[in-house]
Amino acid sequence: MDEHKDTLSWKLLSAEEVRKDEWIDFRSGKYELPNGKVISPFYTYRKCNFAVIVAVTEEGEYLCVRQYRPGVEKVLTEFPAGAVEPGEDPEKAARRELKEETGFESEDWVRLGKIAPNATIADNMAYCYLARDCRKAGERHLDETECVDMLLLTKKQIEGLIARDEFVQAVHVAAYYMAEAKNQAE
Amino acid sequence: MDEHKDTLSWKLLSAEEVRKDEWIDFRSGKYELPNGKVISPFYTYRKCNFAVIVAVTEEGEYLCVRQYRPGVEKVLTEFPAGAVEPGEDPEKAARRELKEETGFESEDWVRLGKIAPNATIADNMAYCYLARDCRKAGERHLDETECVDMLLLTKKQIEGLIARDEFVQAVHVAAYYMAEAKNQAE
Repeated sequence: MDEHKDTLSWKLLSAEEVRKDEWIDFRSGKYELPNGKVISPFYTYRKCNFAVIVAVTEEGEYLCVRQYRPGVEKVLTEFPAGAVEPGEDPEKAARRELKEETGFESEDWVRLGKIAPNATIADNMAYCYLARDCRKAGERHLDETECVDMLLLTKKQIEGLIARDEFVQAVHVAAYYMAEAKNQAE
Repeated sequence: MDEHKDTLSWKLLSAEEVRKDEWIDFRSGKYELPNGKVISPFYTYRKCNFAVIVAVTEEGEYLCVRQYRPGVEKVLTEFPAGAVEPGEDPEKAARRELKEETGFESEDWVRLGKIAPNATIADNMAYCYLARDCRKAGERHLDETECVDMLLLTKKQIEGLIARDEFVQAVHVAAYYMAEAKNQAE
């Protein structure tokens, strides 16, 4: 459907670097819209990609984690997730993060899709996977900046949390339902 | 499940204002983790909430829009969406945005949930709605910074786009599936 592209794309006229380090590249841009109007500032940022894993045990329970999220200033229940290093295979990152955060492994990995947490202002993508028949394969290995609890939830519990606005990370909600759709299609 | 909160929450020790205007409040924070370790910088930002509408016509087609998204530097296919003004009722904002972006109205609104595009670094929330039996009620009213095409897609087309990583906004993917779950539960 890219026939629309030329009539809808914005043109970047100039960009100011607001903050750039190893964590983020945050910019203020001046753009010309397709209708000729110029807008400024329009903020965007670049950040690393990450992998999210909908990991289900042999017993059908979902491996979840709880950790503090400074954006919303709350402890959230989510799926295991972690950074994809530049150039790294996203599935390899997903396998590593699952093992480190939960101690579980899987031999049955399914790619669910690549989605954008916030395509409007950020360039980073989340690679979502379903890992089935997960088994405990060792201890968790958290680095010293990870304060993460682990818990096992049923499908009913996760859907209850989503319904009560208590499982709120959009990427994780999308990944949960993509996994459900994949399971139902088989 | 807030019994975990005290052992997982981070403590904000200090914050530097990197950029603050009517569009964004972008900060660099210094945090003490529950294990006593201090990390800095950890960037967060505050931005306005928004509403996303999964709007379905009487014929069962989904109202979609296409627009340029500077974060990923691409024209994306999405659902209608727009800002919720501070203090505004999110459903009121959803009704307004649907009317303005598509010219369609609905008398059958269902709240799907409140989710976070990126709870890790941002505070804003997306209020998701399902609007059924939408009918054309007038012309579109786009403001001069909105260059947005409109299109009608079938359920099969949307699921095909999602499967091909061509419908990538995580909030919109989550909203689509939340609407599907709501429809299936009835």
